Amino acid sequence: MSRTNTPDFALSSLPAYGDVQAAAGRISRYCTETPLLESPFLNQKYGGRLLVKAENLQVTGSFKLRGAANRVGALTDDERRRGIVARSSGNHGLAVAYCAGLMGTSAVVVVPDTAPAAKTERIAAYGARVVTVPMKDLAAVAADITTREGRVLVPPADDFWVVSGAGTVALEMVAQAARLNARIDVLLTCCSGGGLTAGCLLGLGETSPATEVYAVEAVGFEKMANSLAAGRCIDLAPGSHSICDAISGLYMARLPFEIIRRRLAGTFAVTDDEAKAAMRVAISEFGLAIEPGAAVALAAVLSRKIPLHGRTFAVTLSGRNADLDLTAAALRQV
Amino acid sequence: MSRTNTPDFALSSLPAYGDVQAAAGRISRYCTETPLLESPFLNQKYGGRLLVKAENLQVTGSFKLRGAANRVGALTDDERRRGIVARSSGNHGLAVAYCAGLMGTSAVVVVPDTAPAAKTERIAAYGARVVTVPMKDLAAVAADITTREGRVLVPPADDFWVVSGAGTVALEMVAQAARLNARIDVLLTCCSGGGLTAGCLLGLGETSPATEVYAVEAVGFEKMANSLAAGRCIDLAPGSHSICDAISGLYMARLPFEIIRRRLAGTFAVTDDEAKAAMRVAISEFGLAIEPGAAVALAAVLSRKIPLHGRTFAVTLSGRNADLDLTAAALRQV
Repeated sequence: MSRTNTPDFALSSLPAYGDVQAAAGRISRYCTETPLLESPFLNQKYGGRLLVKAENLQVTGSFKLRGAANRVGALTDDERRRGIVARSSGNHGLAVAYCAGLMGTSAVVVVPDTAPAAKTERIAAYGARVVTVPMKDLAAVAADITTREGRVLVPPADDFWVVSGAGTVALEMVAQAARLNARIDVLLTCCSGGGLTAGCLLGLGETSPATEVYAVEAVGFEKMANSLAAGRCIDLAPGSHSICDAISGLYMARLPFEIIRRRLAGTFAVTDDEAKAAMRVAISEFGLAIEPGAAVALAAVLSRKIPLHGRTFAVTLSGRNADLDLTAAALRQV
Repeated sequence: MSRTNTPDFALSSLPAYGDVQAAAGRISRYCTETPLLESPFLNQKYGGRLLVKAENLQVTGSFKLRGAANRVGALTDDERRRGIVARSSGNHGLAVAYCAGLMGTSAVVVVPDTAPAAKTERIAAYGARVVTVPMKDLAAVAADITTREGRVLVPPADDFWVVSGAGTVALEMVAQAARLNARIDVLLTCCSGGGLTAGCLLGLGETSPATEVYAVEAVGFEKMANSLAAGRCIDLAPGSHSICDAISGLYMARLPFEIIRRRLAGTFAVTDDEAKAAMRVAISEFGLAIEPGAAVALAAVLSRKIPLHGRTFAVTLSGRNADLDLTAAALRQV
């Protein structure tokens, strides 16, 4: 696993709009077309139009299913026989495990020993082999299994097919917005490694080129903001904390960054309290239960980091797999 | 307001399938086509296929919008000028207030002085005039305003257009199930006055005649079960309590009962704890935040009152407008 801080990708090897279109065809049997919803009450309050893309309703609980389904769907027969590997304790692991079972291949998911039992049990219930290791050994063990068993490694963001699959969120959103007689002026995406943001940039580039795209991070985990400022990928040192576990990784994915660096309008960062407030609004205004990391794009709008007034915004609500105690705590904190 | 315990309706005055179809056209601009979702994990656990109709994602937070939009959409020009009246502190009041504002008429919503401030504020924000009275005076005040101001009373269930509008839930469900290669063997609906259940029976009668329909009530509020046993509408005396406030009315609506009495497969009743457990599952397995009264149909399946094994069930998740503290309490109670 090379981890340089210079681009690893020639521009010619990056996915493009056509790859997102191909992904849409490949994943349609496995993924739900999640609804694009709006609240007349919020629209009135903010003087604009806010569309939320409910990827928390996706089959395995997050948009990650799109990338995983596209990657597994694109395996050769030989690769399918050999199987896949992922390292994840969360949404990516669930997505990979589910796809493997459905698409006739086998999966090994390497999880840290700190992962919640509920998630690892679910990954196993989908039929994947779960290998539990100390967090510090995660990458090495996954690499070792990849080599030893001849499996294909499926990264959570740093992958041609995973990014293309994530981009189908944007294709759907643009078509759904058109049916609502809306044109999306601004899209805010939840952002960690950058797979969703990069995919959406690809999907929007051809279908809605005037849409400005912003990436929203958790305070303390501003990999994208730092990387854009530096002009190269900047990973983070451990030590920060956020309730937004789904986007609190330390690694800035290389392939997405190459797409994002030229096209992103900007970034925002959201506090734990702002994320919790957005979780409450997602429930009360939309009936959607989301995890904290999936609430940051909505939180950026609600906390008025960018003014909605007179415009149409779309935000991704990217997943639901929160601990129920944490959701309960967020609801109580008014 | 006559309240006899004999049928008030000639069969020829009841809505039929064509009225549900007409409603679908009338309401499409105002209502969301809510998704029909399933969880591979639950399907595996119960050995069948469970489809959930997410009416909690409906614009005003419940299926009630369909009936209200159909009623207001069918007003004559003269009636529209005179305006409408509803009595409700909850989902019906929100739906009526929202429709009136959007469809060029005025609404008065009579609410009990026990109604939560959040709901009455929202009803007012939609532009309705809110009249707050003691619970015991609710019906009389609404009737008085209806007469004095020449407005049209829009009941929550006991109405030709309201029932027809509710039936569009079934039309959508059957079409969506077909796209999922599913045929619905059993539909379980949340049930209070019976508007949703009756409407669904009408919609299914032509599109999916083999589907058995069950009504699910809250323990202590089994108006439908009692009425079916007696062969006539049985209202309840006050005194019971349930967290399922949306379905804890005392009045068995006459028009829906005339449709239901000949066609319903049966009823179930659900406890508070069973409803709370279903609220948790709706969040963890589907990402859907629902109110307790909207959880009872799902609760009947999860508590195995009717075996899913080997069959395809659909359940309505009929609304989301729960107090956030109550949702938090349900999440905590594991």
